[in-house]
Amino acid sequence: MAPVKISIIGAGSAVFSMRLVNDLCKTKGLAGSLVSLMDVDEQRLNGVHELASRYVRELGADLRFEKTTSLETCLHEADFVINTALVGGHAYLNKVRAIGEKHGYYRGIDAQELNMVTDYCTITNFNQLKFFVDVARLMEKICPNAWLLQTANPVFEGTNLISRCSNIKVVGFCHGHYGVIEMAEALGLDENKMDWQVAGFNHAIWLNRFIYDGRNGYELLEKWIQEGNLEKWRPKNPFDLQMSPAAIDMYRFYGIMPIGDTVRNSTWYYNKDFETKKKWYGEPWGGPDSEEGWKWYEQQLKTTTDAIDFLSKNRTLKLLSLNTYLKFLPKGAVPVEMKKEVEVFSSPDKLSGEQHIPFIDSLVNNNARRFVINVPNEGYIEGVPNGVFVEVPAIVDKDGWHVEKIEPKLTDKVLRFYLWPRMMRMEWALHAIMNGDKAALIEFLMRDPRTKTLEQAKAVIEEILNLPENQQMKTHYEKGLKL
Amino acid sequence: MAPVKISIIGAGSAVFSMRLVNDLCKTKGLAGSLVSLMDVDEQRLNGVHELASRYVRELGADLRFEKTTSLETCLHEADFVINTALVGGHAYLNKVRAIGEKHGYYRGIDAQELNMVTDYCTITNFNQLKFFVDVARLMEKICPNAWLLQTANPVFEGTNLISRCSNIKVVGFCHGHYGVIEMAEALGLDENKMDWQVAGFNHAIWLNRFIYDGRNGYELLEKWIQEGNLEKWRPKNPFDLQMSPAAIDMYRFYGIMPIGDTVRNSTWYYNKDFETKKKWYGEPWGGPDSEEGWKWYEQQLKTTTDAIDFLSKNRTLKLLSLNTYLKFLPKGAVPVEMKKEVEVFSSPDKLSGEQHIPFIDSLVNNNARRFVINVPNEGYIEGVPNGVFVEVPAIVDKDGWHVEKIEPKLTDKVLRFYLWPRMMRMEWALHAIMNGDKAALIEFLMRDPRTKTLEQAKAVIEEILNLPENQQMKTHYEKGLKL
Ligand SMILES: NC(=O)c1ccc[n+]([C@@H]2O[C@H](COP(=O)([O-])OP(=O)(O)OC[C@H]3O[C@@H](n4cnc5c(N)ncnc54)[C@H](O)[C@@H]3O)[C@@H](O)[C@H]2O)c1
Ligand SMILES: NC(=O)c1ccc[n+]([C@@H]2O[C@H](COP(=O)([O-])OP(=O)(O)OC[C@H]3O[C@@H](n4cnc5c(N)ncnc54)[C@H](O)[C@@H]3O)[C@@H](O)[C@H]2O)c1
Repeated sequence: MAPVKISIIGAGSAVFSMRLVNDLCKTKGLAGSLVSLMDVDEQRLNGVHELASRYVRELGADLRFEKTTSLETCLHEADFVINTALVGGHAYLNKVRAIGEKHGYYRGIDAQELNMVTDYCTITNFNQLKFFVDVARLMEKICPNAWLLQTANPVFEGTNLISRCSNIKVVGFCHGHYGVIEMAEALGLDENKMDWQVAGFNHAIWLNRFIYDGRNGYELLEKWIQEGNLEKWRPKNPFDLQMSPAAIDMYRFYGIMPIGDTVRNSTWYYNKDFETKKKWYGEPWGGPDSEEGWKWYEQQLKTTTDAIDFLSKNRTLKLLSLNTYLKFLPKGAVPVEMKKEVEVFSSPDKLSGEQHIPFIDSLVNNNARRFVINVPNEGYIEGVPNGVFVEVPAIVDKDGWHVEKIEPKLTDKVLRFYLWPRMMRMEWALHAIMNGDKAALIEFLMRDPRTKTLEQAKAVIEEILNLPENQQMKTHYEKGLKL
Repeated sequence: MAPVKISIIGAGSAVFSMRLVNDLCKTKGLAGSLVSLMDVDEQRLNGVHELASRYVRELGADLRFEKTTSLETCLHEADFVINTALVGGHAYLNKVRAIGEKHGYYRGIDAQELNMVTDYCTITNFNQLKFFVDVARLMEKICPNAWLLQTANPVFEGTNLISRCSNIKVVGFCHGHYGVIEMAEALGLDENKMDWQVAGFNHAIWLNRFIYDGRNGYELLEKWIQEGNLEKWRPKNPFDLQMSPAAIDMYRFYGIMPIGDTVRNSTWYYNKDFETKKKWYGEPWGGPDSEEGWKWYEQQLKTTTDAIDFLSKNRTLKLLSLNTYLKFLPKGAVPVEMKKEVEVFSSPDKLSGEQHIPFIDSLVNNNARRFVINVPNEGYIEGVPNGVFVEVPAIVDKDGWHVEKIEPKLTDKVLRFYLWPRMMRMEWALHAIMNGDKAALIEFLMRDPRTKTLEQAKAVIEEILNLPENQQMKTHYEKGLKL
């Protein structure tokens, strides 16, 4: 159980900061380790660092936390680096989406066929993608043997870009596969009796195996549908879409179930406008990636960052006590997800469900566990070139990851009508940024059904390149620089 | 020089009948061979057979022609089978195109991104595609060692379909690569000083190598453009588009020149409507695949079939005399291409330029020659899965084809923005027909910018399935039958 150094870049992340701190403090196998928190936002950084230090003490865990705004310091002698940074933050996402909509691109130009997730940009986010590569190349100098756990989006484009621009060991992480558990709950199944596999790309995974108690699990899904549950289905929140009309319609076409965020990443047929999104993803939000759904999500994130800020400033508050949080949270109906998060934080042993820290523990302490991770394809998924990152189930132990044999194979239609078109756009995005190819950015939009004229496509790209925070992007694409 | 049996299916083809007869009669190495002409249209069959017999006599060639309307008879003991049939003829193409346009699909539903060629259908032509497979499977029984020279379109979807539904030796043939010669003429170059290669898929080939007299040939192309030739360019006929604004615009984006029909197979940006086509492919036709361009082409085909009919009925006319033809052809300006054809037919030794017969001679008589043919990829083009048919230069001799090393490689953008999207649609079409998957046909249109609603896509597919000649197609797709 040699202690390790774990560095978190973008440690102020609303989504991940407290979950990672929670898991780190409750993983005995990492005792004696050093956790380096890094962010450019000192207020957030101090908040997380303050809470982490108190949390460690309350839990009696043997862990040291340091904080820095310097990437170099953070990476110094790191064994594991977790990137959860969002360069430019949500403010930038909202700004470029508004520009896109002004030019006739509903939900912005980054919303693309099979890639509708609002914070999963591939065209306007040069700064974010460049930062991924900067981190990897800095790691090559400072901690060449360290693992990079890529969590910031876009994980698919990001892991492929990093592996083509550096030779750092990179693994992509997500929690989309928990959609399988959501489905089990909806079907009233006992998780432990389920033999399942998912495979595909990040935010593009499909339930290739679903056996329940030795029987074909899909029969139970058909039964659920026949019993009229689909008509009765209502979303509890914008992210509750595993059993939505969109998921079932995609299941009908592709032959197996789309899991987690894959349901969000459908074609324009399901996302043309707000009314269409509500038809397929349920009222009132129309899924997470509509005007209403994303507003709900940003409110959630704000509640989290406010909570961290509040708790970090009230040093007397006990973190391991439930009512510390409940007192703070808004009176109205606290979404069940938020409640669960609070129960986890305030418990002495519950983990967040994120895979990062258990993954590190499996590697460091040879505690073999099953994960769903993004690694370069090596024949795991036929029809996908080797080297392209695929999201597959794997057992992880001290020798690394051992991907399970994907059995039964993904259906023909998932490969040809889903994975290939999605992979093609990843390659377009990587070609554009790795060669500073502005014409490629424009061509992306020329093949987009929302584009009516070349002038429309050029104008929206120009306006985004001319944003003050995009000076480096503008030079990169004006001069056709290599990444 | 063992004599062989060469079978031509669809021998009445306006495009190919006389060209193949011409080459067969003038290829000494095939002396003593038997040519079996097969067609379902007896009038055309008799016409071609009559002309072929007289042609042989006038040339003093040692060749026997037989005719039959039976596919089995035609294939009996065949060594080479050339398929130039168009099941349903141009009449069917025009009918389904009109239906498509009625439903809002300009140029019909078979016109697709990067596949605009009017007689290159992939969605509505179940009968044509099924016929390809029927021929191949019948060959497996009757002449399993024979070569199938696939010429009828779609050659790309056809060769891939045949190789997945049978294990017949199939090679795809086209004459698009002669666009390189057209470019040489436009640049005022001596063909023999050109070191060139093209590579890609059928109707999707790119000039990856262009060296002239030891220098980078593309410098000469840039010079041609700088000298203002592009502005002065005017098409001599609808098929004259190698140096059109569309070709040059694609060259600018992809970095190398699109060759031959590849220029026709551009995105909707160049083909949105007739005005757009005229802007990119020149006045007055707007290229071959516009309303006007295709009308011109059908008139050409009619002139040819009428000529065959006329000459076959006037037995005293000498075929090897030029004015036999000139007297017959319409008074007005005979397009230069038609003149060239007549000069070839009436000469005792000139060949048509088609590759089929020289290919057979190279194989049978070990006369090594260079061809551009469609064969399964075996690493020739990186990034294209092995087994997918690629159109590449190869030396052919008694041992078969030896594909040249493709050097320099195709550009990154040709692979990602052209070959992959085109290959993806081939796979969609093959999945649909091989599984009788009607939902896949509809999905094809749901990802088409001309489609506004699901009802629109369903209605046009329904109307085509309900055509009297498509009863078998309707059953195939209603019942989801395997091919
Ligand atoms: N993989 C997954 O399962 C998953 C799930 C949700 C979100 N995400 C992604 O995680 C990322 C963070 O999301 P969030 O909603 O928590 O965003 P956030 O804005 O709340 O947090 C991002 C953090 O990154 C910091 N940051 C910005 N630029 C930085 C830089 N140059 N160096 C260091 N830190 C920097 C910000 O200050 C902020 O603290 C996003 O990319 C999001 O899409 C991934
Ligand atoms: N590969 C190339 O270079 C190239 C170039 C031009 C055209 N083509 C293709 O060649 C084919 C013929 O084109 P065309 O314009 O000469 O068409 P066409 O209609 O003039 O000739 C097609 C012939 O096929 C015959 N036919 C139809 N059904 C048949 C069947 N079941 N069995 C036998 N014969 C049958 C017709 O009677 C006709 O004589 C088309 O598919 C066209 O797209 C290929």
